[in-house]
Amino acid sequence: MISPISRRAHVVGLGLIGSSVALALRDAGWTVTGSDLARAIEDAALGTGVITGTALSDEHCLVIVATPASAVAPTANAILREFSHETLVVTDVAGVKSAIVNDVSDPRFLAGHPMAGSELRGSAGARADLFQGCTWVLTPTNATTPETYGMLHGVLRELGANVVAVNADDHDRLVAIASHVPHLLAGALMNEASRVAEQDAVLLQLAAGGFRDMTRVAAGDPGIWPDVLFENRSAISLALQALEDRLAALRRALNDDDHETVSRDLLSAASARRRLPGRALHSENLAYLRVAVSDQPGVLAAVTTTASEMLVNIYDIEIAHGIEGKGGTLLLAIDARQAEPFSLALVARGFEVGHE
Amino acid sequence: MISPISRRAHVVGLGLIGSSVALALRDAGWTVTGSDLARAIEDAALGTGVITGTALSDEHCLVIVATPASAVAPTANAILREFSHETLVVTDVAGVKSAIVNDVSDPRFLAGHPMAGSELRGSAGARADLFQGCTWVLTPTNATTPETYGMLHGVLRELGANVVAVNADDHDRLVAIASHVPHLLAGALMNEASRVAEQDAVLLQLAAGGFRDMTRVAAGDPGIWPDVLFENRSAISLALQALEDRLAALRRALNDDDHETVSRDLLSAASARRRLPGRALHSENLAYLRVAVSDQPGVLAAVTTTASEMLVNIYDIEIAHGIEGKGGTLLLAIDARQAEPFSLALVARGFEVGHE
Repeated sequence: MISPISRRAHVVGLGLIGSSVALALRDAGWTVTGSDLARAIEDAALGTGVITGTALSDEHCLVIVATPASAVAPTANAILREFSHETLVVTDVAGVKSAIVNDVSDPRFLAGHPMAGSELRGSAGARADLFQGCTWVLTPTNATTPETYGMLHGVLRELGANVVAVNADDHDRLVAIASHVPHLLAGALMNEASRVAEQDAVLLQLAAGGFRDMTRVAAGDPGIWPDVLFENRSAISLALQALEDRLAALRRALNDDDHETVSRDLLSAASARRRLPGRALHSENLAYLRVAVSDQPGVLAAVTTTASEMLVNIYDIEIAHGIEGKGGTLLLAIDARQAEPFSLALVARGFEVGHE
Repeated sequence: MISPISRRAHVVGLGLIGSSVALALRDAGWTVTGSDLARAIEDAALGTGVITGTALSDEHCLVIVATPASAVAPTANAILREFSHETLVVTDVAGVKSAIVNDVSDPRFLAGHPMAGSELRGSAGARADLFQGCTWVLTPTNATTPETYGMLHGVLRELGANVVAVNADDHDRLVAIASHVPHLLAGALMNEASRVAEQDAVLLQLAAGGFRDMTRVAAGDPGIWPDVLFENRSAISLALQALEDRLAALRRALNDDDHETVSRDLLSAASARRRLPGRALHSENLAYLRVAVSDQPGVLAAVTTTASEMLVNIYDIEIAHGIEGKGGTLLLAIDARQAEPFSLALVARGFEVGHE
């Protein structure tokens, strides 16, 4: 446990994650200062009480660098050079880790990546509870001391995060295939469809729900994406190459009338996708219900009110549409233990319910 | 208008689409017979009144071939050979059209593709209203007579469909990029992630919402997919090649430190994705609201009940999660004219509401 007198933290960069860390620490009883390149953002954070000051001093025991990935190493190194006290721990929240841990070798530095975010951007989306139950990756190196790890781990647990320790290279390889490459794929698919649609305006009318799902992430403001993509370029490059190889193999199988390869690929993907863990609960503890619904006002409310009355928490919800037809299927992920009574309650209210 | 005496239709293949066509025609006052290779399916359809018989005769004026794509041409040709009456029109519902229109050159044949479906499979998911408001593509050729087109167009309008006429080759190129290639991409991405995850089990814990969105379509039973993919292999092959080229170009841009190309690609994709038309309403008539929600039971119900009370129809709904953190953002697509009063009502109930 850190003595109360040293519970002073400083956040560099007051965007969504930085501001949320500041709020979470404040609510956990820390004194939190912060700074941002934009003076207006600093003033706003001071005005709303997210931070109590902007100066970093040798009384701070924790600095969170919440800048874009490319600015983390120079920022962290400058702070570690200026403040030599041994009680200091510096961490970051960037989505790419290898270059950072290579460039910052101080034993008081331990890089991290909270797997939390929001559709909202900037401090407006900041929430003190953003990290409750979230996976927070730490990437210790040979230079990381047990004191540094223990201190930061304790703080993150205070914020409600589940701490996972991963090698920085592994982290970058994993987020390349799970996040960065999907983002690029969505963009490439959308751009190619858009090119085809220039000649055939009817195309976009024919875009089914699957296409909408697959391109959804491409709709956002590019924001920090270019920065993250270039920081992780080597892992992304390998993953892109692997995808290109898989697409080329599928293309050859189609041209060679090789039904076995195509069917095997579809089956293995279906099996792997069904094993994908859920969010808060592990997938084996979730039940996926399919409820046929019409597009009438009130249908969703009837389903969710039933859930609410039965204290059934909906972990995931989406409507799988019959493309342009009316109605569709409501997909609900709920705690598997509640699946049977909840299904029966829905059936009693006239719904058709299936299980995935 | 077809004289009442000739309103007899026959459906070959009583799966989801075939059964739904049968139900829709029956509800529109047609006498509907049907057949299926599986005797049990025929018996069930007779038992539930979906069809009134199984025999096709020269009193039928409409035959809908609702078999898998590869069986359409031989089935349609056999029927057209056996029944020579000029009042007969034969159509199909397969997801691929070029090979079919090349193989069936009878002037009484006009191929079609209803852009409707359901997450449910087989006759259990059949619904009489499946085609209300759905886009139904017809692919007339030089052989198609105005009589055939006019008759089928009239019937489809009776079923509530919006009929679109497209060249068969264009149709196949469009569904390749809008549906078939996305399906293959989702599978390839899931399989590659699964391969990486074999060495690092933590990967799937790090899979963000975007990854889940992009691989969702891969979760289903392959079902008729292999059949459709092989039938449309030439268009899919071209589209896959185009995707491979785009991914390779992105990979080179990353390796060459070419920020401009990457940013331009992300921006153009974002712009195109935002222009993607909505389902029932055109996208310019939809408003997308973002509502910050916690993972508590009842939150969804509060939002959807408010919508229900205000007669606001929710055209699309999803939860964008902060990966593993609690809560998230509810994305709602509603009629733009209702956006302001509905937002105010939600704010009055304590929600934070943003517009996309």
